[in-house]
Amino acid sequence: MEETFVPFRGIKKDLKGRLLCYKQDWTSGIRAGIRILAPTTYIFFASAIPVISFGEQLERDTEGSLTAVQTLASTALCGIIHAIVGGQPLLILGVAEPTVLMYTFMFKFAKDQKDLGQPLFLAWSGWVCVWTALLLVLLSILGACSIINRFTRVTGELFGLLIAMLFMQQAIKGVVEEFGIPKSEDPNQPALQPSWRFGNGMFALVLSFGLLITALKSRKARSWRYGTGWLRGFIADYGVPFMVVVWTGVSYMPVNDVPRGIPRRLFSPNPWSPGAYTNWTVAKEMLNVPPVYIVGAFIPATMIAVLYYFDHSVASQLAQQKEFNLKKPSSYHYDLLLLGFLTILCGLIGIPPANGVIPQSPMHTKSLATLKHQLLRSKLVDTARKSISKNSNLSELYENMQQTYKEMQTPLVYQNPSSLGLKELKESTILQASSSGYINAPVDETVFDVEKDVDDLLHVEVKEQRLSNVLQALMVGGCLAAMPVLKKIPTSVLWGYFAFMAIESLPGNQFWERILLLFTAPSRRYKVLEDNHATFVETVPFKTVAAFTLFQTVYLLACFGITWIPIAGVLFPLLIMLLVPARQYLLPKFFKGAHLQDLDAAEYEEASATPYNMAFGDDDAHLRTPQVDSGEVLDGIITRSRGEIRHTSSLKVTSLTQTPIEDMKPVCSPRLSQRVYSPRLTELRVAKSPKSPGKGLEIKKTPSPRPSILAQTSNGSSSC
Amino acid sequence: MEETFVPFRGIKKDLKGRLLCYKQDWTSGIRAGIRILAPTTYIFFASAIPVISFGEQLERDTEGSLTAVQTLASTALCGIIHAIVGGQPLLILGVAEPTVLMYTFMFKFAKDQKDLGQPLFLAWSGWVCVWTALLLVLLSILGACSIINRFTRVTGELFGLLIAMLFMQQAIKGVVEEFGIPKSEDPNQPALQPSWRFGNGMFALVLSFGLLITALKSRKARSWRYGTGWLRGFIADYGVPFMVVVWTGVSYMPVNDVPRGIPRRLFSPNPWSPGAYTNWTVAKEMLNVPPVYIVGAFIPATMIAVLYYFDHSVASQLAQQKEFNLKKPSSYHYDLLLLGFLTILCGLIGIPPANGVIPQSPMHTKSLATLKHQLLRSKLVDTARKSISKNSNLSELYENMQQTYKEMQTPLVYQNPSSLGLKELKESTILQASSSGYINAPVDETVFDVEKDVDDLLHVEVKEQRLSNVLQALMVGGCLAAMPVLKKIPTSVLWGYFAFMAIESLPGNQFWERILLLFTAPSRRYKVLEDNHATFVETVPFKTVAAFTLFQTVYLLACFGITWIPIAGVLFPLLIMLLVPARQYLLPKFFKGAHLQDLDAAEYEEASATPYNMAFGDDDAHLRTPQVDSGEVLDGIITRSRGEIRHTSSLKVTSLTQTPIEDMKPVCSPRLSQRVYSPRLTELRVAKSPKSPGKGLEIKKTPSPRPSILAQTSNGSSSC
Repeated sequence: MEETFVPFRGIKKDLKGRLLCYKQDWTSGIRAGIRILAPTTYIFFASAIPVISFGEQLERDTEGSLTAVQTLASTALCGIIHAIVGGQPLLILGVAEPTVLMYTFMFKFAKDQKDLGQPLFLAWSGWVCVWTALLLVLLSILGACSIINRFTRVTGELFGLLIAMLFMQQAIKGVVEEFGIPKSEDPNQPALQPSWRFGNGMFALVLSFGLLITALKSRKARSWRYGTGWLRGFIADYGVPFMVVVWTGVSYMPVNDVPRGIPRRLFSPNPWSPGAYTNWTVAKEMLNVPPVYIVGAFIPATMIAVLYYFDHSVASQLAQQKEFNLKKPSSYHYDLLLLGFLTILCGLIGIPPANGVIPQSPMHTKSLATLKHQLLRSKLVDTARKSISKNSNLSELYENMQQTYKEMQTPLVYQNPSSLGLKELKESTILQASSSGYINAPVDETVFDVEKDVDDLLHVEVKEQRLSNVLQALMVGGCLAAMPVLKKIPTSVLWGYFAFMAIESLPGNQFWERILLLFTAPSRRYKVLEDNHATFVETVPFKTVAAFTLFQTVYLLACFGITWIPIAGVLFPLLIMLLVPARQYLLPKFFKGAHLQDLDAAEYEEASATPYNMAFGDDDAHLRTPQVDSGEVLDGIITRSRGEIRHTSSLKVTSLTQTPIEDMKPVCSPRLSQRVYSPRLTELRVAKSPKSPGKGLEIKKTPSPRPSILAQTSNGSSSC
Repeated sequence: MEETFVPFRGIKKDLKGRLLCYKQDWTSGIRAGIRILAPTTYIFFASAIPVISFGEQLERDTEGSLTAVQTLASTALCGIIHAIVGGQPLLILGVAEPTVLMYTFMFKFAKDQKDLGQPLFLAWSGWVCVWTALLLVLLSILGACSIINRFTRVTGELFGLLIAMLFMQQAIKGVVEEFGIPKSEDPNQPALQPSWRFGNGMFALVLSFGLLITALKSRKARSWRYGTGWLRGFIADYGVPFMVVVWTGVSYMPVNDVPRGIPRRLFSPNPWSPGAYTNWTVAKEMLNVPPVYIVGAFIPATMIAVLYYFDHSVASQLAQQKEFNLKKPSSYHYDLLLLGFLTILCGLIGIPPANGVIPQSPMHTKSLATLKHQLLRSKLVDTARKSISKNSNLSELYENMQQTYKEMQTPLVYQNPSSLGLKELKESTILQASSSGYINAPVDETVFDVEKDVDDLLHVEVKEQRLSNVLQALMVGGCLAAMPVLKKIPTSVLWGYFAFMAIESLPGNQFWERILLLFTAPSRRYKVLEDNHATFVETVPFKTVAAFTLFQTVYLLACFGITWIPIAGVLFPLLIMLLVPARQYLLPKFFKGAHLQDLDAAEYEEASATPYNMAFGDDDAHLRTPQVDSGEVLDGIITRSRGEIRHTSSLKVTSLTQTPIEDMKPVCSPRLSQRVYSPRLTELRVAKSPKSPGKGLEIKKTPSPRPSILAQTSNGSSSC
């Protein structure tokens, strides 16, 4: 992205880019059919459950001024508006923990001021929103988001991991509190006697761990060995919401003698209860706020603006990571502008504003990648079956499949000659087949096993559309009406769900995977290479990886520590933003450029910034596809957590070119054991790098085919 | 085994065979060094925990006449004697559930007779033991165990699964009872108030599931990716006992306000408490029993004798299954004789007798297979390392390894030319190497990766010795002294342990694996073929497998149902024994002979019974190794559950012969994808079958290389 600070330029570009695909955003979503409900439901739960819980927290902390009704309303309202008129529809909006913390501080402040007090708290926070909005609009107009490409992987992933830690912390805290007496409850009621509290706490452990374990298992249902494909797919798609229902059901099982209030359940007023809707008319009272407080509102507003600028952009960035191979343009500037307007709107109706949230936004993209894979897959399987029944040979089969694949692409991609799927379909598999002399014989299922082989042809692609986002926001809005039902969910199920979200956000986070690598026994590191893995695993020495990861971990712990300091804690994004200059000026002094590039690709180091041509020219496509950026073989890592979209089978080469089996013998691996990866993967990298567009056999000339992380366990003797 | 009913012949043969290896039984155990403690501890826990729990059950049901002190004493005493003077030292003795049920019935009967009553109950049961012992001795002398080879896999595995179900039932019942008021306790104490009972039950859920999940995970530690090899090995070896300690520790965490008795813990008198040792002098009172009851004792005695005859033999048989490749002879007749004497001994000192137990006995063999593997492995790795450092070429390396392997064998095996390991070392890997032209170059770790490749050279072998058995029995005896410590274990941890034992006993049970196969989606059945698997998977049509399994399942459920009927329930072994004629006369009418042979190999169908030469001639070795019995490629299945002794990597052939890569091309699989198994595994079978000692390439002549279970999903089109 170009770093331009000419006013309005960024916003204009964003608008132009997104308008081009606006209609397609809707048609594509509608064409997905009923299947769109899987990501929608998944994200709806991930969005609504924390918001309800934050609402409960706000209710306690603001003495009822704000409740789950307001947080849900804000999330739904902002979500619907953003999904319809926003730029990047992958971004999910919601009331987040930092907002809750800021509002809590603001409430405490306002309550102690005799000119404000609780009655004018919402009016005053309306002013805070106005100032925040002004700052956001200003930042957006001035192109502050153009520096978003300085927020490299190291920043985004550290932030992602921090959020995961905060979610996990909330989960643990929540379960521990189930053993205690909740604030603002009468401690004399039977359910709060020590004996029942003990039972309640233990029940909470059962329910939260039950939900956590079953939800994690159900996400992997696609790779289960048992049950029909339909059932497995259904469980993988809807298992998590279903488990919330199941464990809520379980929570109703103990009936004999168990008093009301065990287990504890969500608490929120119904939106139609008296008092729940006093806030909507807060705009009228805003002029009653003394002028000094109107001006003073600027101070919290700056903090919130910084927070939102960072949160919103990073959430958007994490939802658009390179490995998703997105085809539609980003929209950082325009989305920040819209956020400004949304913040004013929320301020005027007395609800806390919503902003882009992590981990829901990347979860949304991931679930849409699964959807896209399923759609492509079912079409291609059909085509392949038809071709086989017509006695096509392999080339015809692939030609038909290519044709189908093309038809599945959006018109945008038609104009884009470097689309991924086509090449792979053509080169990788046909080479394999022709080397075995089967290219002209009629294909049967022994040669091309439709069900299994189609999976290996597909890249990660994302169903980019607006329907899932608007639907999930509408469903969040529907929660307001369904409040009596929602209140049946035990809080402990909620804590289990928080833990689930924390764990679900980890796979695909390279920072996390590097931490795991540090704990991997040296003799087992080869297993990392057998899986899909990032470039650095092969190119960067283990010690460098360790040093880099340790630095990042210490930084993460520092950020986590700061969140524990009362007011300052809200400003942890500032500390994270400090990583940007640290990455740019400090880290290059300690790490080699090439290593740093593999560990944390920064576009500003790669080349001078190219003008961001947001139309669908080749430039953009190249920036967004891994072909130029070299082999970050990440797709598997992303989708691994989604079920079993893709597996690295021992001898199936998924790269663009492939070495016929005979050619492998002269290489160092006389036995076709696990060590086959070593030539294969390096070759894969070589083949993909634009600098050396060689064929697989050229590997023999590259100095060390043995990945560096293995060098410690063996003598690195790769001489043939 | 010869079916001879000439008195004493079986016993004599058993004795002769075991005496030959008696000294080696001890020296081999001692030479294993400290590592013998891993299987010992593992089996000690598996043996002691149920015995304590059965003791508790007996205490409740016999109003304190018998307690855990007596069951532990019996298990220890019989265990020590059997380990020292018994025949098959793999067999584990213990007081089992059927014994407990019989003693309960006997107590209820005796208590209601005014001539007996509770005071003479033990004396009368002493008479029952005397009669039982007489019957057992008679059965043993008359060679009743020679029909043990009619107890085919179908019988043994059904019995194994039934025991697993009973353990699981006990686990579930136990946890449910944690919510209720235990019998014989004062319901007014605080811990039994509804609120605390609720808490206790929930806590029990946490503890039992905690133990179950962590114990299952810890057994797989060897294949973990994280942690050093030493740590992983330690956790895999000692993780389960360690987890019992950990969860017992967790059970002490809640202290505030929680009354005594939560969670509930093991209950047993200390052996030195007054009243706990009144039973030892019961022999003196035996003459006080009225003669009519002495005679009447014959009735329960017959039931117990049938039970023990069956239990003891099947437990012994399951501990000596073919896939363990045992080298020392069996000892059914002599062990039954010894059991007779042990029963009299127990009867005279007023403790319930112990007999061979399932699943502990097969668990014992499996853990000794792991031990043997580790011992062999570490020696071979050393040898390989030394050879490599001396710049040996591949042939020299293998020669050295063969030499080491030979030295590791018992002298018995020296005399046995058909020992397994040698052949495999020689043929499989050298062939691979020579085909790549590496046979004469100095070996380095790129060619022969010591750590990984040695694993693939090893067959399943078992460390057959007496030390682990006698040590575990001594430790069970030590429990008597450690009773105050044992009483700290919560009962809920016990229930978790019961569930763990049930689940641990499943892998390797073909009946169970066939049930799983029925639930495997047709499109996923190829995954079964990728793993190690039994012959029937490839040779028997899926429908036949399904029919056979359904028949067995219905039979299993019938047996399980019978255990619920009060007195008759003890006699479920009779129903299981009915399977023997059903298998012999009924099943062949419904299933093809060849299929039946693959699903449930019966020696009597294969050939006329050969004289059982129990010395170490070739006959015996052939009977015990899978070479003659054709390719039941089961070793992996057995050891899979033990951690990661053995994996089937895609192209590593673990059979006796192997097809060089070039030769694979003419076969139907042009792409080296998963479908490689199809020629490979069939070839493996062909190569092993003595009738067609062909080479791998002969596969092209066999009619259908495509495994039958896949036939349903694809068109079975295997024409090249």
